[in-house]
Amino acid sequence: MPVVEKPEATDVPAPEGDYNLISPFTFLNHQETACGALLILNQDLSGSGVLKLWQRTQLHVCADGGANRLYSFWKSDDDRKKYIPDFIVGDLDSLSVEVRDYYKSHGSRIIPQYSQYATDLTKSLYLIRVWYRNAKLLESDIEEHEGLLKLSDEINETDKSTSNNVYIIGGMGGRFDQSAHSINQLFKITMMLNRELDLFMITTTDVIFSTQKGTNYITYENKSLFYPSKKVPICGILPLGCPTVLNTNGLIYDVIDWPSSMYGDASSSNGVSGTKGFIVDTTEPVIINIEFDISLIQ
Amino acid sequence: MPVVEKPEATDVPAPEGDYNLISPFTFLNHQETACGALLILNQDLSGSGVLKLWQRTQLHVCADGGANRLYSFWKSDDDRKKYIPDFIVGDLDSLSVEVRDYYKSHGSRIIPQYSQYATDLTKSLYLIRVWYRNAKLLESDIEEHEGLLKLSDEINETDKSTSNNVYIIGGMGGRFDQSAHSINQLFKITMMLNRELDLFMITTTDVIFSTQKGTNYITYENKSLFYPSKKVPICGILPLGCPTVLNTNGLIYDVIDWPSSMYGDASSSNGVSGTKGFIVDTTEPVIINIEFDISLIQ
Repeated sequence: MPVVEKPEATDVPAPEGDYNLISPFTFLNHQETACGALLILNQDLSGSGVLKLWQRTQLHVCADGGANRLYSFWKSDDDRKKYIPDFIVGDLDSLSVEVRDYYKSHGSRIIPQYSQYATDLTKSLYLIRVWYRNAKLLESDIEEHEGLLKLSDEINETDKSTSNNVYIIGGMGGRFDQSAHSINQLFKITMMLNRELDLFMITTTDVIFSTQKGTNYITYENKSLFYPSKKVPICGILPLGCPTVLNTNGLIYDVIDWPSSMYGDASSSNGVSGTKGFIVDTTEPVIINIEFDISLIQ
Repeated sequence: MPVVEKPEATDVPAPEGDYNLISPFTFLNHQETACGALLILNQDLSGSGVLKLWQRTQLHVCADGGANRLYSFWKSDDDRKKYIPDFIVGDLDSLSVEVRDYYKSHGSRIIPQYSQYATDLTKSLYLIRVWYRNAKLLESDIEEHEGLLKLSDEINETDKSTSNNVYIIGGMGGRFDQSAHSINQLFKITMMLNRELDLFMITTTDVIFSTQKGTNYITYENKSLFYPSKKVPICGILPLGCPTVLNTNGLIYDVIDWPSSMYGDASSSNGVSGTKGFIVDTTEPVIINIEFDISLIQ
């Protein structure tokens, strides 16, 4: 189980055979058409890059009290009314009356979902899935206990060809079990939907996502685009679900047949060597984080 | 695998048979003699409760740049010189010359450990273990590559009877792989040392620790002491190492023979019902977080 040190920059060609393609940094591309979804959770938005993420995404959803955060983020009402979420979803125990009334009168669709056996994050992801797969289903009344879960279950077959990136703000930090729940959702939704939704948690320091088991090819236009001032952005390959065996290509500390476990050895403080991508082959799904320069979207 | 809802307050007697006792909130007790160790990592100390944690612990260690944070935390030099760490440990790539000179001249022992195959957190934990078990070993010169690891290895048998609490500030938040590394250390040190050191990560919202596999009894004087204004402090039972089967007694949502996994169901947003303690029986070690009111130590 050797560790091989790589130079600061390596070219890593796409893997041979089947692989799972992950493109965490498309939100940094200045594409003409906005794409992907932005999901805002109930945490402080200062420094989160919400404005640019909003402009580069096509669907905008607030989970419950996330709408309060969005409302109070703007310094003027002129700004506030330019950024109206398409949907506000959750048990609505955090949403203030003032914010609810404001966004409702400006065109947001408010969807109460009162079940206590799913979190607001999970309910929002059901909504986003249904919107991508068959948005018309959202036009009629939605049962207020767990209607979104039922609608999502009706679209039972997954369709990887419609893969869409979902950027989530406010999922990490705060109480630790909330961060762990976010990780739980990254794993669970990725496995359940076969990457039909590609979830990315955006923090002020890094992008966090789940792989599938097998070969994963993580790509980007060029690593200088997500961290211009650092030759080797830091990353971690984290077996937060169960022990795994890793093979990587394109990291500063590449590993070969390396048993990795949170009870034993886990690769934190690794670094990105691959200029346009790197490969993580894993026997079980793992979490990857890659640091990026948040000032690029501020 | 039922879930049983409990009232806001329950009395939970100690388990029968063998169990692992964990007392996360002894730092809130106003005991006459300070006990336990405080370890300061390289993160912002504002709002961390460092002053009261310092006063209630007997050993004070900074990991590398943690000393910079401590130095700049104090508003006056009078305060600064009252709180001199016993040790500063690490590869010292972050420690500023000014801070190093200041603490050295005020009596801190600086221990460089240059190995890149352990983090400053790990190196500091080796030091704390050696200090508790045989502090005289630290009086002579310590080999500067991985001398602390070797000293700790010399004390190879674990001794649960000497169990000591270690409170760690600055281990969570920041880059995600750093938080994951902290979790990795909680698991690894707990398993390796058979709880000879009881590690507790202190954040501004919660206390985070590892259990052992088997029966764990988490106790405190009274739950009103760690969160006076909340009847049900929130907690999470988080299988961050591998899938497990849980049985609990004393939570708001108690579980019976419940398979739990980060790929499936994980108990976040649970709550503490047990007035003086609760029981977590688990087939594999898990991470527990309990929220507490940080203003109690500010």
